[in-house]
Amino acid sequence: MIDVAILGATGAVGQRFVQLLEHHPWFRVAEVAASERSVGRAYAEACHWLLPTPMPSSVAQLTVQPLDADFHSPVILSALPSEVAQSLEPALAQRGHLVSSNASAHRMADDVPILLPELNADHVQLVEVQRRKRGFSGTLVTMSNCTTVPVAVALAPLLTFGVQQVQVVSLQAISGSGYPGVPSFDIFDNILPYINGEEEKVEREPRKILGKLSGDQIMPLEATFSASCNRVPVLDGHTVVVSVKFANPPSLETIRQAWQSFQPHAWARHLPSLPDSILLYNDGLDRPQPRLDRDNGRGMATTIGRLRACNVLDVKFVALSHNTVRGAAGGAILNAELLVAQGYGQHLGLPSVQHLHA
Amino acid sequence: MIDVAILGATGAVGQRFVQLLEHHPWFRVAEVAASERSVGRAYAEACHWLLPTPMPSSVAQLTVQPLDADFHSPVILSALPSEVAQSLEPALAQRGHLVSSNASAHRMADDVPILLPELNADHVQLVEVQRRKRGFSGTLVTMSNCTTVPVAVALAPLLTFGVQQVQVVSLQAISGSGYPGVPSFDIFDNILPYINGEEEKVEREPRKILGKLSGDQIMPLEATFSASCNRVPVLDGHTVVVSVKFANPPSLETIRQAWQSFQPHAWARHLPSLPDSILLYNDGLDRPQPRLDRDNGRGMATTIGRLRACNVLDVKFVALSHNTVRGAAGGAILNAELLVAQGYGQHLGLPSVQHLHA
Amino acid sequence: MIDVAILGATGAVGQRFVQLLEHHPWFRVAEVAASERSVGRAYAEACHWLLPTPMPSSVAQLTVQPLDADFHSPVILSALPSEVAQSLEPALAQRGHLVSSNASAHRMADDVPILLPELNADHVQLVEVQRRKRGFSGTLVTMSNCTTVPVAVALAPLLTFGVQQVQVVSLQAISGSGYPGVPSFDIFDNILPYINGEEEKVEREPRKILGKLSGDQIMPLEATFSASCNRVPVLDGHTVVVSVKFANPPSLETIRQAWQSFQPHAWARHLPSLPDSILLYNDGLDRPQPRLDRDNGRGMATTIGRLRACNVLDVKFVALSHNTVRGAAGGAILNAELLVAQGYGQHLGLPSVQHLHA
Amino acid sequence: MIDVAILGATGAVGQRFVQLLEHHPWFRVAEVAASERSVGRAYAEACHWLLPTPMPSSVAQLTVQPLDADFHSPVILSALPSEVAQSLEPALAQRGHLVSSNASAHRMADDVPILLPELNADHVQLVEVQRRKRGFSGTLVTMSNCTTVPVAVALAPLLTFGVQQVQVVSLQAISGSGYPGVPSFDIFDNILPYINGEEEKVEREPRKILGKLSGDQIMPLEATFSASCNRVPVLDGHTVVVSVKFANPPSLETIRQAWQSFQPHAWARHLPSLPDSILLYNDGLDRPQPRLDRDNGRGMATTIGRLRACNVLDVKFVALSHNTVRGAAGGAILNAELLVAQGYGQHLGLPSVQHLHA
Repeated sequence: MIDVAILGATGAVGQRFVQLLEHHPWFRVAEVAASERSVGRAYAEACHWLLPTPMPSSVAQLTVQPLDADFHSPVILSALPSEVAQSLEPALAQRGHLVSSNASAHRMADDVPILLPELNADHVQLVEVQRRKRGFSGTLVTMSNCTTVPVAVALAPLLTFGVQQVQVVSLQAISGSGYPGVPSFDIFDNILPYINGEEEKVEREPRKILGKLSGDQIMPLEATFSASCNRVPVLDGHTVVVSVKFANPPSLETIRQAWQSFQPHAWARHLPSLPDSILLYNDGLDRPQPRLDRDNGRGMATTIGRLRACNVLDVKFVALSHNTVRGAAGGAILNAELLVAQGYGQHLGLPSVQHLHA
Repeated sequence: MIDVAILGATGAVGQRFVQLLEHHPWFRVAEVAASERSVGRAYAEACHWLLPTPMPSSVAQLTVQPLDADFHSPVILSALPSEVAQSLEPALAQRGHLVSSNASAHRMADDVPILLPELNADHVQLVEVQRRKRGFSGTLVTMSNCTTVPVAVALAPLLTFGVQQVQVVSLQAISGSGYPGVPSFDIFDNILPYINGEEEKVEREPRKILGKLSGDQIMPLEATFSASCNRVPVLDGHTVVVSVKFANPPSLETIRQAWQSFQPHAWARHLPSLPDSILLYNDGLDRPQPRLDRDNGRGMATTIGRLRACNVLDVKFVALSHNTVRGAAGGAILNAELLVAQGYGQHLGLPSVQHLHA
Repeated sequence: MIDVAILGATGAVGQRFVQLLEHHPWFRVAEVAASERSVGRAYAEACHWLLPTPMPSSVAQLTVQPLDADFHSPVILSALPSEVAQSLEPALAQRGHLVSSNASAHRMADDVPILLPELNADHVQLVEVQRRKRGFSGTLVTMSNCTTVPVAVALAPLLTFGVQQVQVVSLQAISGSGYPGVPSFDIFDNILPYINGEEEKVEREPRKILGKLSGDQIMPLEATFSASCNRVPVLDGHTVVVSVKFANPPSLETIRQAWQSFQPHAWARHLPSLPDSILLYNDGLDRPQPRLDRDNGRGMATTIGRLRACNVLDVKFVALSHNTVRGAAGGAILNAELLVAQGYGQHLGLPSVQHLHA
Repeated sequence: MIDVAILGATGAVGQRFVQLLEHHPWFRVAEVAASERSVGRAYAEACHWLLPTPMPSSVAQLTVQPLDADFHSPVILSALPSEVAQSLEPALAQRGHLVSSNASAHRMADDVPILLPELNADHVQLVEVQRRKRGFSGTLVTMSNCTTVPVAVALAPLLTFGVQQVQVVSLQAISGSGYPGVPSFDIFDNILPYINGEEEKVEREPRKILGKLSGDQIMPLEATFSASCNRVPVLDGHTVVVSVKFANPPSLETIRQAWQSFQPHAWARHLPSLPDSILLYNDGLDRPQPRLDRDNGRGMATTIGRLRACNVLDVKFVALSHNTVRGAAGGAILNAELLVAQGYGQHLGLPSVQHLHA
């Protein structure tokens, strides 16, 4: 088992890390770290546990360490706020750790990939650029914004048709605002048609994720994105309503086939957190729905539905992913799995995928 | 006072009619009619009253009549299901009544206007075509779909810039599904990304409403609409996220000014149900919000916010109207007021607007 | 595997039966039956599936049979409405089936037990009385009302202290109203302080469940119950706030120990649907909570918390059970397991518990 | 008009003060004060306005003052946190102000009344004791806890029957937790069966409110209260489920009559914030309901329903009040009205009730 340290372990995403790693075949939560007021306390006491499954007892006992502790774990999962991640994550990569971050701080750096391994596992090779340029012995990779996930997953199989313009309207769950997050008085019987910084991320990140690695850099997808982000009274699961214009508009049937036959990137196929199907098309009239579809593929699958013609662009559809599983903690775990499987932890004595599956 | 009959009086929209007419300066609820199982009972007993204000006692006493009764009221407000409205409403217009309907059955008929008087009060002149062609002594006018309202109100002041393409994603309240409407088990912690027949209406009706009356017909607005309609867990108030492409794209500031200086149609200005402002621009970062803005202008105003550039079309914004007030019962009352004010009830001895304000 | 027929299979509880039996070690869904409009259709088409886990494909294929079909399955699980259950369930027992019902129709019949096997598995012996008196070759046993469950489970370990008076105020989930059940417009931002027939059941059923089998009858617990039942906007999980007066009031610590050391009835211990712990005491200040605790023990455990002195009676506490799992489908499955394990299906060639565990 | 200063003006209750005073016949908001971070800013900017009616423009302009400012307003309405109120409120009373507080800090002081004027307006005479003992030239009176209101209002008309024991289970709205208050993630699809400090208040305050002023002190009602307090996903309106034991149990009909014939205390009758009916009995099967009944009497009436026999105590019923109107801001305004009307502001040149109504 490979030891893992979780940074920001008491927060909403931190707890998801703890929950998802409970029975992980490769990783074991060995260290938890959080902000000042939690340091020195047992995790069970420092953490206001928010999840319906019990806190894993092995983690409950751990003493919360400060964020600047000298972690021994080779793998670091970061659920840090962006302003803290800004300096801390590169320092940890410098010290040799494999840092898989959920923070937005470094996503757009030229030599830092935003990994959704089923789509762009090859972008992990930026690690080599990063090591070369920054002198990291470890590495730093990032997970995308949660709302970006269903957009990127739905579009990846359609790139061959020349995606040109994409309109996204999101209906985002309250868990996406962290904890305590949005006050109940604000969202109850209400919609908040604004989420600070979100639209910029949704307009920017899919272009990088769906771009092509070329030499030392990623050439972003040449497509224009427009996003309108809304918070709705739903617990978990981000829904996106998407319209797309193509250079070579395919038929609806062709698109459905592209989705149904889509294969995850070869390097991602045997990663333990990858679900059997990363993308499900549900042809129910009124699907996907967050309460019914967010847990598909143990929260790691994107569900799509309602594909139809769009009068303004070419086609429109609805897609949905679990925002704190596929869109946050589960995604960052998957990225850490990819780092290990591709052998980027060999300097730490970690096996690569051949050995993991031997 | 002018007597009014309410058809479908025990349903969700019917109750709103009763509520909104309680202190109306011109109209008095004289007759209520509903389906078979309510007929012959006192309204207070037949009706499962859903509103937080008390049922007006004068209406509580009325005996529910059958839908095919011989109504004496000159004005008829219809909250009938479309299939019932189909034959019943024209028959009532034939018999001389001023029928103001909230049903969708006749909205797209060539000689039936969809009236939002603040925008298109002149379309009421189709009544003359209708009388000529169908031989009605009364008339039949319709109120639009509830989701169409914020779209049409927001676009009307912008027509001068050449509206060409409009993308609409709606987040619609549960009260829009009537009563009993959507089961709690379906919408709780959930979104339903489909509302039967709604998208077609939102793509079609604004073109007619915003069209020009020319001779005997309305020339629809030459613009393309694409709609994606969603039910969300909000009690009242439909939110629409709108992107627009113009022939002559104005600046954001010009659009804001167009909204803020927009004047309702002259014929609508003195109608009692018209609010002081039919359109409010709220420059709060996160507005409009259904719980905070749906009751603006006693539920008759549309609130707009978040105007900004759109990467795909030209601009995007969020608009909101109360779906059962401006978007249904209040709208149909306003239409009935227009009919009376324009003198279309003179054959019944009703005054026109000069006399109403004398 | 033992074939099972589910009656009322398309409803909310019927679907839970299908879901919970998917990987059952003894039972296999062989037949599904529902009301007229579903008959003859594939289950997948007849059923508006409401659950977040996929419909089991083996059941999806089954053709829905009429409720009066000639079922071949030895075990019948009934989620019938009470008025249908009234005549149909005894007829099936007469024909030899082991009928485990969730309906209320026969719960209070003298020779029909209300089984919560962890508490009163010995009441299953009423089957013999039933067979003797009614000439059944099969049998009919019932599951209690869903709100009764947390009350009965919490009180069972305390009977030794002489339970005399019990005040129950329930906060019940919307799934308890079935499907379509309570309209969203009624329960949204609201509480319904009345549930038809519920208070009578909660005041009556615990006395029978916690009573003693004596000869041919059950001597009900000599205690007085008062219930006030409320519907609240929660999806699943019934919470009860309980105050109790004892003949010999124990200390709070003694009560906690009684709960923590409580052992399920010996006959229930090896039934596959019994959870590891049927009763959990959570000493968190603000527990139990429906969203966090309803799935404890795969939805089969009752969670108790907030034990403290009551100024009016002796002690008060809060208890919670999953209403459609432990409180309905899961409970009826457990009862069917008990029937089989105790050998009441031997006339049908079913094994008893010795053979099941051999 | 009498100038009023609002302390804690930017919070949830402070905003209600501002809203409710907009058209008040006696009072005018002249000063607003709040904690450090708001001081010096315009109220419109310092305050995240939470209410659906627009912020009154006269208040929007006011500059927020520090809590220890030298207020000129004779009347002070306090929505301070208890720990701040502890020292600040007596100091203001010392300086001559009429302080009407919603804080809990001084409620149980011997010489400070908890006023619900419709029930115990005579308790205002404690002001004289307070002035004598503490040397205040002004005075300090308090409003009760919000959950106490429906309990006290429902019991007041029944004191003649000898109220002995009272069981209260509350279902409290989220607005009662202030702002930001309870995180949405905690209360969504959930119940919180614990509210810090609430049960003690509900067990203690009704005894004082319903007690008798005798000489220099209030003799509390000789009755035992037991409370269980729960937070539920409802926006506004606290529901209480109450069981009562009497020395001389009246019939249900007698109780209903006592409620329906109850007259507010003579000194309260002409206060502007007193509604026409302070107590409404709704004989609907399923009433009161928070969404339908919280605004009765402009949020100042208590609605009662479901009176029936209790198997354990004598009778049980459900009562409901608006927690931030009658249960907080509206109540404290009513108390300030009583102070003025009874002439306790004459040292400040304020009129008494004779002059107010002259």
